[in-house]
Parts: sequence; structure tokens; C-alpha cells
Amino acid sequence: MHASFERLETPCLLLDEARMQRNIDRMRERAGALGVRMRPHLKTCKSIDVARRMMASPTGPAAVSTLKEAEYFFGHGVADLLYCVGIAPAKLAHVAALRRRGCALTVILDSLEAARALVQAGAAERERFAVLIEIDSDGHRAGVRPEDPRLLQIARVLREGGAQLQGVMTHAGESYNCRSVDAIRAMAEQERSCAVAAAQRLRAAGHAAPVVSVGSTPTATFAQRLDGVTEIRTGVYVFNDLVMAGLGVCAIDDVALSVLATVIGHQADKGWVLVDAGWMAMSRDRGTAAQPVDQGYGLVCDAAGAPIDGLVMREANQEHGILAMRDGTRFDAARLPVGSVVRVLPNHACATAAPFDDYRVLRGGEVVASWPRMNGW
Amino acid sequence: MHASFERLETPCLLLDEARMQRNIDRMRERAGALGVRMRPHLKTCKSIDVARRMMASPTGPAAVSTLKEAEYFFGHGVADLLYCVGIAPAKLAHVAALRRRGCALTVILDSLEAARALVQAGAAERERFAVLIEIDSDGHRAGVRPEDPRLLQIARVLREGGAQLQGVMTHAGESYNCRSVDAIRAMAEQERSCAVAAAQRLRAAGHAAPVVSVGSTPTATFAQRLDGVTEIRTGVYVFNDLVMAGLGVCAIDDVALSVLATVIGHQADKGWVLVDAGWMAMSRDRGTAAQPVDQGYGLVCDAAGAPIDGLVMREANQEHGILAMRDGTRFDAARLPVGSVVRVLPNHACATAAPFDDYRVLRGGEVVASWPRMNGW
Repeated sequence: MHASFERLETPCLLLDEARMQRNIDRMRERAGALGVRMRPHLKTCKSIDVARRMMASPTGPAAVSTLKEAEYFFGHGVADLLYCVGIAPAKLAHVAALRRRGCALTVILDSLEAARALVQAGAAERERFAVLIEIDSDGHRAGVRPEDPRLLQIARVLREGGAQLQGVMTHAGESYNCRSVDAIRAMAEQERSCAVAAAQRLRAAGHAAPVVSVGSTPTATFAQRLDGVTEIRTGVYVFNDLVMAGLGVCAIDDVALSVLATVIGHQADKGWVLVDAGWMAMSRDRGTAAQPVDQGYGLVCDAAGAPIDGLVMREANQEHGILAMRDGTRFDAARLPVGSVVRVLPNHACATAAPFDDYRVLRGGEVVASWPRMNGW
Repeated sequence: MHASFERLETPCLLLDEARMQRNIDRMRERAGALGVRMRPHLKTCKSIDVARRMMASPTGPAAVSTLKEAEYFFGHGVADLLYCVGIAPAKLAHVAALRRRGCALTVILDSLEAARALVQAGAAERERFAVLIEIDSDGHRAGVRPEDPRLLQIARVLREGGAQLQGVMTHAGESYNCRSVDAIRAMAEQERSCAVAAAQRLRAAGHAAPVVSVGSTPTATFAQRLDGVTEIRTGVYVFNDLVMAGLGVCAIDDVALSVLATVIGHQADKGWVLVDAGWMAMSRDRGTAAQPVDQGYGLVCDAAGAPIDGLVMREANQEHGILAMRDGTRFDAARLPVGSVVRVLPNHACATAAPFDDYRVLRGGEVVASWPRMNGW
């Protein structure tokens, strides 16, 4: 067994610090070259230790996906936060409480109903909420289309109700389904142009709309220009994963997260190796299933982090993983005797990290630290 | 909004106590009728409050899927535990430590390598480990076939090395892939007969093998006889889920878990309702995708728990769910205005419960308690 791993009870989550730093540096350079501010999305890492390496300053800016994340990061001094899920009216009292404590928390919405609820809660809480209107740039999920008459109606309700309308945001989640770099580039331009068009429409109607926020890791990676955009929000780039590698966003050896697992048995006649990490550790995310290279529940590497030719986690039960060759040939199970450890790269970093309480940080092949992460709601 | 849910920040995990109790009673009756002991598997609930309702006594017996579960439940007085994942040699020191503290923890293995490692650790730790040999009854995962010569070789290594060989266990995980009750019945008989055959072979060779442990919720539900079996291990029955309903193991209104979510927006022209629960809350488990009725990421119910005709969570992002009609017809989004709450039944209870810190317990439609759960490793 790898000396540094002897004391670790498996499964556990390893974080290769050098790979992570390389990923962070690359995205920071991208933002600089594109002339936009970074607002890293912390929903992937959920760790202040990682976040501090991602953010431009200890106070942010940053994006979150839950109010519990907002509480956690604000508790660690991150004060400039964007909560990137359409605000549920019942959560506005919590948002107001955070704002009263000094957290510059901005919320998003995309409907007249939500705008009216926010104005009403603002009056009840005596709070001038900060708001971005969510724009639908790809038909993927939420948002109002830039040409939709409701865009200006929402803005009017917010202004008349005393809210601070700061601008627009969009997320081209559809970029995850692109099948070429050219397609991602086109999606990035679509994301940019929709957001900018919406902001211009607001401004033409007399709203300030200083903020134009876009982003997904794929579109930020391949955007050719971001004229009119003020900030990008990206999260998964910090660790990268097999889905990102399948999209051409990163190389396999940019994937900074892996699950350390121990071999517990074999079905040698089938070429199967059984390990003590299953879907609870890897997640049920099968994001590479729709990509040209299906990595099963994860790509299997040796203890040093080098892929073992074509070995993937082909099936997963709760705490069992079945490793087998991707191409169906028989793996020589004797190569991984009972008790050996492997590192499994994840399809989707956000999902694989979720059940773990901490990152075991690898530096120069040794575990040098444990960084806690928060989870839940 | 449902009065009792007003103070809950969504998403949160609701547990219908009456449904749970009915599920528990039904499985207990099954075990009684079949003349076997229950060893409930606690990997689904991971909660002492739920476990105490499942177990025959406060000290067990019970089954777990991680040593962290063993620590947690033993810390709450559950002393008779079976750890149902093939033991990794490096975990034997931890197992020995638990046993020295008074936990009657039994481990499983299915290879000569693992048996030799256990004997070696037993000598080092001065511990007579209690062991079941895992039998492969369905080709699904781990285990040695009852007719395999290695069965007796493993038993010999254990006996000569001073371990306590207590018998055999098997798990017919393949029952989840059955497509009829008859097929599950046949699988239950196959699970029983393989385990009993292995135990008889051990006894014929002079080993005691008093324990014959089998089980999965589907096979335990439909087994016609369990002659020769001493105990069944079932876990998911306590909550049930859409996969179990799809197998005919339970009805939809036996599903005791649901995720409470709030409507945050619509894409009315598409018939989409957006909620603040996505795959982080529901899990990425799509176990019903291969069943006759595909429930997406979950079946949507109103606040009282009644299914809303054919509405499912059709897509899920990390913290966003898209509700739409299963049959592709357009749902009238106005029926669920922004701020309304829905309850989403899970495909797979074990996976959906995993990211939550607690169960909000529903009794008579009111949330009356919060029961903590443990997670991770």
C-alpha cells in the first residue's frame, strides 16, 4: 500500500493540491484575458479552505447554491455572495437576517410572482433586497427570455417596491450537453449575448443593471469574448472531473479529486475486482454515459494517481464497487490483490464530494491536511 | 402552505411515521410466518430512532454497511452487529477495537486471501474474529459459489487460524432487476437454496455453521419458504420507495419518505414547474428508468402526500428540480404557484436520505420530531 495511505480508512476523498491549484490558476487567467471578474461558485467545494484559494479576496465575491452555504461561508468572512437558485418566498426572512448581520447577499428570481413576494417581504422585513433577474439563455432550466415582456414588468415591480435591481444573471447549463468545442463556443456566445441583451433592455427602460453575470465551467473555458459581461461564475473547474474531460474542458490528469478505495475481493473468472466504495462514495452520477467515452461510475487509477488501462467502476451498489475493463475484456484480477488500494476519478465532482466530511489533501504524494466540508441544507 | 410545513426551510426530508410503522409491522409478520429471525439492515435509515423501531431488541441484532455505522449504533447500545461488506484487511484493527469494547461485530469475506489476512490480524490483535463466509447466490456481486472448492478451503484457513466461523450469508441483489413477482419468488428460492447448500457443505466437512443469513427486501417479501435459513436482512422496507413499488413489493402509499420542496418558478409554455430540490436532495438514482413506469427523479405529491396525477421530477440539477408530466402532456403550471410546496417520493430511499442530517417526523400530518441521522465514513 502507498505509505501515506496506510492510516486512512476507505473510502475517503483525496484532493491533489497541485492539480487544484493549476485548475484555479488557469481559470483566473481566463477571466483576466476575457476582462471579467471571477465570482467562483462554491457549491462544488463547500470548503472554506478551497474557497479561499478560488476567491479574489477573503471576502469574495462568490456564489452559493443554498442558504446553508451562505451561512457557512459568511461565518468564515465571505460577505459578497450571490445565491444562485430562484428565491423561495419563505426564505426571504432568512435572507433578510443574513443581510442585517452584514452579509451582502444577492438573490435571483425570474417571475412577477417572485418579484411581488420579494417586495412584500422587503416591506415586512424593512429590507431593500439586492436582486438579479435570471435570464433563460439556453432553454435548459429557469429564467425569463431577454425579449419576454415580463423582463421589464419584473424590473418595474422591483423598482416600485424599493428593491435594489442590480442586473441580470444566466447559466448555460446546456453547455454540459455539447459534443464539441465549437458547440461550447457557440453556447458561450449565446449565453453572453442573451445576458447582455437583457441588461441593455433594462437599461433602455431606465434601470441601472450594472451586473451582467454568466457562467458555467465549459462556456467560461471556451468563450472567445465576453463583451458586456461583468463577471463569470464557475465552480467545478476547481476540481474538474470526467464529464469535463469528456467535454474537452480539461485533461484526465487535471482531475484533482479521487476516491481512495480498498480491494475486498474478486470474481476472477469475470475479471471483476470488488472494492469498498460504491455509489454512496462515487454518487449515482453517470454523466459520462452520454459521452463518447463512458467511464462507468469512475475511472480507476493506481495509488499514485495513474489510470490503470481502461479499468472503470462498471457497477456500484451502496458500499460496493465492481471494477472491470471498459471494453469488456477480462482484467487480470491478480494485479490488484485483496488489500490493495485504488483511486477512482469521479464523473461529477460536485456529486462525488457531497457525502464526505472532508478532503484529505495530497501534496507531493503525501496526505498533509484534512479540510472539512459542509453539506446538507 | 400546509400549516405544519411553514417553518421548514426546503428541501427537507419528511418521514411519515404511520407508513413506516406499517412497513415495519409487515416485514416482522413476514419473518414470523417464515420462522426466521430479523436482522434489519440499518444502512437505509442510519438513525437510532428508526433502528429501535426496526430491531427485535435495543441491542439488536442488526446489519450495517460501514464501520462508522457500527460505531454509531454500538454507541447507542446496539451490540449484535453484522458488517455486510467484505472486510478490508486494514479495517481489522478497527473491528478488533470495537470487539474489545464489547461489540459483538461479525465480519464477512469470500476469499482465501481475505481469510489469511484475517487470521494474521487475529494473531496480531489476539482476537478471535467472528466470521460469515459470503456466498454468491445470483452472480450479482461478491461471494463464493456453494460448490466452489474454495468454500471449504476458506473454512479450513479460518478454523486452523482460530477464527470463529459462524456460517454463511448471501444477498440476492439481482432481485432488484426482476420484472415479476414470480421472478422474485424464484430468486428468493435460489438465494435460500444456495445459502443452505453452502452451510450444509460446511457442516458435512465438520464446521458448525449455525448461521444462515439471507435477504433483500424483495426476496424477503415474496419468499414462499425459508427452510434452513436462520435470519433475514432487509433494510429498504422500512421506508420503501418507488423502485420497490415498481417491483410490486409495496404500494405507492407505503412510501414513507418524501422530500419537501418549494416552487420557485415556471416555464409555463413547456408545462414545467421549478422547485428548490434537485439531484443533491433526490440523489442521481434513476432506478425506475429500467422499470415499466419511469418516475424520473421522483413522483410529485401535494402537501398532504397524495400524488399529483402523473407529475414527476423530470430533470434535476444540483439544487433545481424540473417537474413535468410523465406522459409529456403540458402540466398547468398555475396549479402550483411560486411558494407552494410539494412532496417528492424517492426512487431509492437509501440514496435520497443520504445527504440529509435528519428526518422530520410526520404524525397525523404534523411535524412532531426531528430524528438525526449519521452519514459518511
